[in-house]
Amino acid sequence: MKKIKIKVPATVANLVCGFDILGMAVDAPYDIMEIQLLDRPEIIITHTDDFGLPEEPSKNVAGIVLLKIQEYLALKNGFKVAIHKNIKPGSGLGSSAASAAGAAFGANVLLGNILSKDEMIHYAMFGEELASGVRHADNIAPCIYGGITLVKSSAPIDIIPLNTPDLFVVAVHPQVEVKTSDARQILKKDILLKDAVKQWGNIAGLVAGIQNNDFNLIGRSLHDCIVEPVRSILIPQFDEIKAKSMELGALGGGISGSGPSIFMLAEKEETAKKIAESMKSIYDEIEIKSFVYLSKINPTGIQIIN
Amino acid sequence: MKKIKIKVPATVANLVCGFDILGMAVDAPYDIMEIQLLDRPEIIITHTDDFGLPEEPSKNVAGIVLLKIQEYLALKNGFKVAIHKNIKPGSGLGSSAASAAGAAFGANVLLGNILSKDEMIHYAMFGEELASGVRHADNIAPCIYGGITLVKSSAPIDIIPLNTPDLFVVAVHPQVEVKTSDARQILKKDILLKDAVKQWGNIAGLVAGIQNNDFNLIGRSLHDCIVEPVRSILIPQFDEIKAKSMELGALGGGISGSGPSIFMLAEKEETAKKIAESMKSIYDEIEIKSFVYLSKINPTGIQIIN
Repeated sequence: MKKIKIKVPATVANLVCGFDILGMAVDAPYDIMEIQLLDRPEIIITHTDDFGLPEEPSKNVAGIVLLKIQEYLALKNGFKVAIHKNIKPGSGLGSSAASAAGAAFGANVLLGNILSKDEMIHYAMFGEELASGVRHADNIAPCIYGGITLVKSSAPIDIIPLNTPDLFVVAVHPQVEVKTSDARQILKKDILLKDAVKQWGNIAGLVAGIQNNDFNLIGRSLHDCIVEPVRSILIPQFDEIKAKSMELGALGGGISGSGPSIFMLAEKEETAKKIAESMKSIYDEIEIKSFVYLSKINPTGIQIIN
Repeated sequence: MKKIKIKVPATVANLVCGFDILGMAVDAPYDIMEIQLLDRPEIIITHTDDFGLPEEPSKNVAGIVLLKIQEYLALKNGFKVAIHKNIKPGSGLGSSAASAAGAAFGANVLLGNILSKDEMIHYAMFGEELASGVRHADNIAPCIYGGITLVKSSAPIDIIPLNTPDLFVVAVHPQVEVKTSDARQILKKDILLKDAVKQWGNIAGLVAGIQNNDFNLIGRSLHDCIVEPVRSILIPQFDEIKAKSMELGALGGGISGSGPSIFMLAEKEETAKKIAESMKSIYDEIEIKSFVYLSKINPTGIQIIN
């Protein structure tokens, strides 16, 4: 009986100025998935968490990915999957991407590593399409590759894995709902060329900073004059969280994905801990329940744990 | 008598997708400047070329830079400068930047290296302001630093020197006039967010490619969906030159600065030579006089030759 257990990392998409192109895997939170190869063409999904996600394969993010793999590879096998999700759906921390990427990764291992990373991404994007209506790779790419990835294009797939700077990541997930579709609709379709130029100066600086492990340059580049000013109004206390984190020594940070989670980068664990406490206490004060995750940038992506 | 002779490289600004932020120094063409420190506060500029540029210091690009240095440093010295310009004014190859950067660089050496590179850029931008009305560092930064530079911000000055990929550069300067002000006016003030996202994916890819010496990635990233489609209509045979160059094996290329020069990058000298011949013959055929320069990316910027 072929069976594996994998650990699938949460991911932070956009990375402030890198709207729709950059993403980063983090060590926490993460999902656990057990995937078994069946000798009959059945797909069985069970969730051992209590988020009430659909388990019918065609309606489940992992299920649809496995159905597509089964279909395109004309498999006679099926898969039985048990998902224990710790990455909360709707958190902006790549919950659907984790299920989708985990399914593609797990199936690939069980089938004898017949897929390239980009092929796994290709299949996993069907899960994102089911979850949000958009076949995007912003979260899937770092989940599969680890570290920080650039999605230069998702059709055709052109993913550039960047360096993994040795940095701490603090993410706070306030228990409020921000729908990805709302977060997308609120954006203006037109932007000023002069703002775009400022943005691409920051993106170029961020990529150079990541590649050179220049933490100061990473910090100087984490500015977003286009998306953050619009989307941050959907997230309670965004400005306060950010200002206080910067005061405590964060390199920079912003909205994770389309929110409501907020992430901050820090060089030292001590700084990261203070930021985590500050985030928690800001939400406690206004009685919004929140979860805070302190970890590092995850260098490997999905890993087999047995 | 303190006197130096320097070689000042031409520069290619924008680098296709890097509008207003990237620039690159090239080995050819280049200006020669002789700068002498005077023990009286006079500024004397002479041009040994025949472009008919003004020699009155306050109206000369090198002159204004030296006047500003003299003023801000409260110098009792003056400078005598002889400029032999090979970089044609109005070519889009950083002619004014060369005079401005050369003046700042030369003065600095003669004054005992009291200025940082960014201070030289600060002074040299007064020359660009005189030439085009805009205090920009797109050409000055690579002229001073060499290689490829990112101007993350020009006020305050934040320049990131990037790698110098070992590539050949072919630039063709057709003898037509494209005014920088026209080239700027023709641009739309608003752009689509989705085009901006495509553009910053390419910029991120280009910077990663430059930093990793990944020539294929550099080539895949040299696309501009915003500025080139608009500005290229001002340059005769732009599409033909580009298409033919790509066919001959160019990695990519586009408008140099705001034109009319066009540049192409190539991995091999053989390919670069074919591109150079093709450019020349396309302009010969329609009886537009052109100059073609084949060289490499210049790694050092301005150099003292004695």
